[in-house]
Amino acid sequence: MINLDRANAEATDRMIEARAVLTGLGKARDVIPGMHDDLLLHAGPPITWDRASGPLRGAVTGALIFEGRARDDAEAHALIEQGVITLEPCHHHNAVGPMAGVTSPSMSVYIIENETHGNRAFSNLNEGYGKVLRYGAFDADVQRRLRWMEDVMAPVLQAALAASGGLDVKALLAEALHMGDEGHNRNKAGSILYLKALAPHIARVSPGSDTAAAVLQAIGDNALSVLNPVMAACKVMADAAHGVEGSTLVTTMARNGTDFGIRISGLGDRWFTAPAQIPQGLYFPGYGDDDANADIGDSTITETAGIGAFAMAAAPAIVTFVSGTPQEALHATMEMYEITEREHRYFTIPAMDFRGSPTGIDLRKVIETGITPRVNTGIAHKKPGIGQIGAGLVRPPMAIFEDALVAFAEQYDI
Amino acid sequence: MINLDRANAEATDRMIEARAVLTGLGKARDVIPGMHDDLLLHAGPPITWDRASGPLRGAVTGALIFEGRARDDAEAHALIEQGVITLEPCHHHNAVGPMAGVTSPSMSVYIIENETHGNRAFSNLNEGYGKVLRYGAFDADVQRRLRWMEDVMAPVLQAALAASGGLDVKALLAEALHMGDEGHNRNKAGSILYLKALAPHIARVSPGSDTAAAVLQAIGDNALSVLNPVMAACKVMADAAHGVEGSTLVTTMARNGTDFGIRISGLGDRWFTAPAQIPQGLYFPGYGDDDANADIGDSTITETAGIGAFAMAAAPAIVTFVSGTPQEALHATMEMYEITEREHRYFTIPAMDFRGSPTGIDLRKVIETGITPRVNTGIAHKKPGIGQIGAGLVRPPMAIFEDALVAFAEQYDI
Repeated sequence: MINLDRANAEATDRMIEARAVLTGLGKARDVIPGMHDDLLLHAGPPITWDRASGPLRGAVTGALIFEGRARDDAEAHALIEQGVITLEPCHHHNAVGPMAGVTSPSMSVYIIENETHGNRAFSNLNEGYGKVLRYGAFDADVQRRLRWMEDVMAPVLQAALAASGGLDVKALLAEALHMGDEGHNRNKAGSILYLKALAPHIARVSPGSDTAAAVLQAIGDNALSVLNPVMAACKVMADAAHGVEGSTLVTTMARNGTDFGIRISGLGDRWFTAPAQIPQGLYFPGYGDDDANADIGDSTITETAGIGAFAMAAAPAIVTFVSGTPQEALHATMEMYEITEREHRYFTIPAMDFRGSPTGIDLRKVIETGITPRVNTGIAHKKPGIGQIGAGLVRPPMAIFEDALVAFAEQYDI
Repeated sequence: MINLDRANAEATDRMIEARAVLTGLGKARDVIPGMHDDLLLHAGPPITWDRASGPLRGAVTGALIFEGRARDDAEAHALIEQGVITLEPCHHHNAVGPMAGVTSPSMSVYIIENETHGNRAFSNLNEGYGKVLRYGAFDADVQRRLRWMEDVMAPVLQAALAASGGLDVKALLAEALHMGDEGHNRNKAGSILYLKALAPHIARVSPGSDTAAAVLQAIGDNALSVLNPVMAACKVMADAAHGVEGSTLVTTMARNGTDFGIRISGLGDRWFTAPAQIPQGLYFPGYGDDDANADIGDSTITETAGIGAFAMAAAPAIVTFVSGTPQEALHATMEMYEITEREHRYFTIPAMDFRGSPTGIDLRKVIETGITPRVNTGIAHKKPGIGQIGAGLVRPPMAIFEDALVAFAEQYDI
């Protein structure tokens, strides 16, 4: 007879003890397992093209323009419809991508290694806020930015990381949680800790002082610079916890803009999905609920690993961005203890007397308590080509947890 | 008849509305009013040499070695005893210095301008933690560090600041308070915000990439890099509030290692002093209470301006450094509302629902409530030549507030 408690304890131990180190960058086609020239990766569970949301469509167009495979929307979509280009989830390739999460073969990606268990994960580079590919924008400005990131910034970051000997992202996150970040929508401290760690190396390895200055400026000005390495760090933690026989731990939560999907440690690679919700939040001037796409992105990997909305009590200032009050931020974290296995050993919350953040979502507890996980998120415009229009709070649909529990009971004959 | 409430409101307005901008650096002898080649500035109220504490003596020795005026302790002290070199408080020259605060003519100092009221203030450069001049150490390592700071770092910072067009230290502080700093003993976020603002300029203006890398590393590795500009920023705020007829606002709190001194807005340049206390705190391994010097330094200018221990609720993680619990940090801020005039308009505390930090100590309220201001502080070894041995919490002696109130009553015939 399987001991579920013991299985969950083991899975959570693996999640918490994973040591995520950023070791370098590489082109997606060279480093991501199974990546090839006719493949694009996207956020969330698998999706057929006819059900793809606006921001995902926009990002696919942008990525195919970036790859030189299409000149516009029509050419890009034809490549998908004709089956020349296929779409697969980032999560099927040890990768994660924020929002649309579209990652194409010649994009550089961060490489995170789990020094405890040996697995690796990947994530693309962060473009900043507003009109950006990951929110479905794809015009000439977006392309210029992606091109600069690829041709100028990525080689400098790669050389700087090589010179640094690698960056312990887990330690960086632990520090950032003591500096008002929750690691998902607020990565302000983490991003400048990242800058601080790499700045001397960037100065040394850059092909000239203007390039060094431009890269330092780009990393420093973008308060989400470190989000993508953080997501890949959370991915190695979650993957380390995946595949434990008899474990009801949630090891994936991800959205493709149409569906919200989860996977369970003890249920292999099967997804449980249902329609994603519209986030509740604060909109940039000129936008509102009617403009919002449904919840999208792999960045829920942060909540899966015990940070993000789960560590919201560490980040009271975030409420100016995602809505709510500092008291509600505290309550958000308190509530998440109800559905998690453990207080994190390394990610602690000063304002809660250094209590560990609630880590390891137990499917059983979600069902027992009726409490679904909280998620902090950006909000994309529902039409392709526009971009970010706000940020807010959302929860996955309860149905996917119910379906997963039924499947678990069947598989384990409980 | 003088209206004290109106006078205090005006003084507090001036303190809060002062806009402190870091505009550049200059040699102390060139920019500090009244500075000359035979003068050393020190922290706290005036003191005679026979009463000078160990760390102050050590720092004076170190500064005179740095200036090439002495080769050792004996030569340095002879110059003071013979009256060749005189000692005056930083505060008498629009300057502030942390711990011993010793500032010598050829040291570079930060220049802060108050764009609202036009006054300026100055502070030396921060050396980092441990065995450093400001804690009374003066050996060859300390000298090498000071020489590098002066010859390599200061010119780069000066050029970078010129290229940047100046840095709004008040805005930086407001942001740092949302990132877990209290702006006195914890300047971790502020220091990397400072790095972020200057990094691209440092890369561009440095005479070579190795120099750029070394300066970026020095600023980034020192979590107190921004303390000295912050102190000078608080000094322009406090000075802006000084000299308001009929105001009982405390506009200076400073310690020289022997005495704690205050000055009052409506009482001109008169000091009220009494023996400084030994801080209560946490010691570095191998040290304890018996090794501690009495409270020392001008860094209490931060509490005077409404941050530091007054904003401790913004910085729960600081308790690992200065002792106490996050709950006590909250209480510290709550208590300071009892003796202050106003909630700061720009310095807000997310965890307290963005309440403004308690700002503008009212002498009358200190006497009425019996509550003395709280101060966060570093702890120096009492012997010259050793350096920092810990950090902790301290309060000024009540007697100086009593003396000041008596003097106020006499001057204003109340």
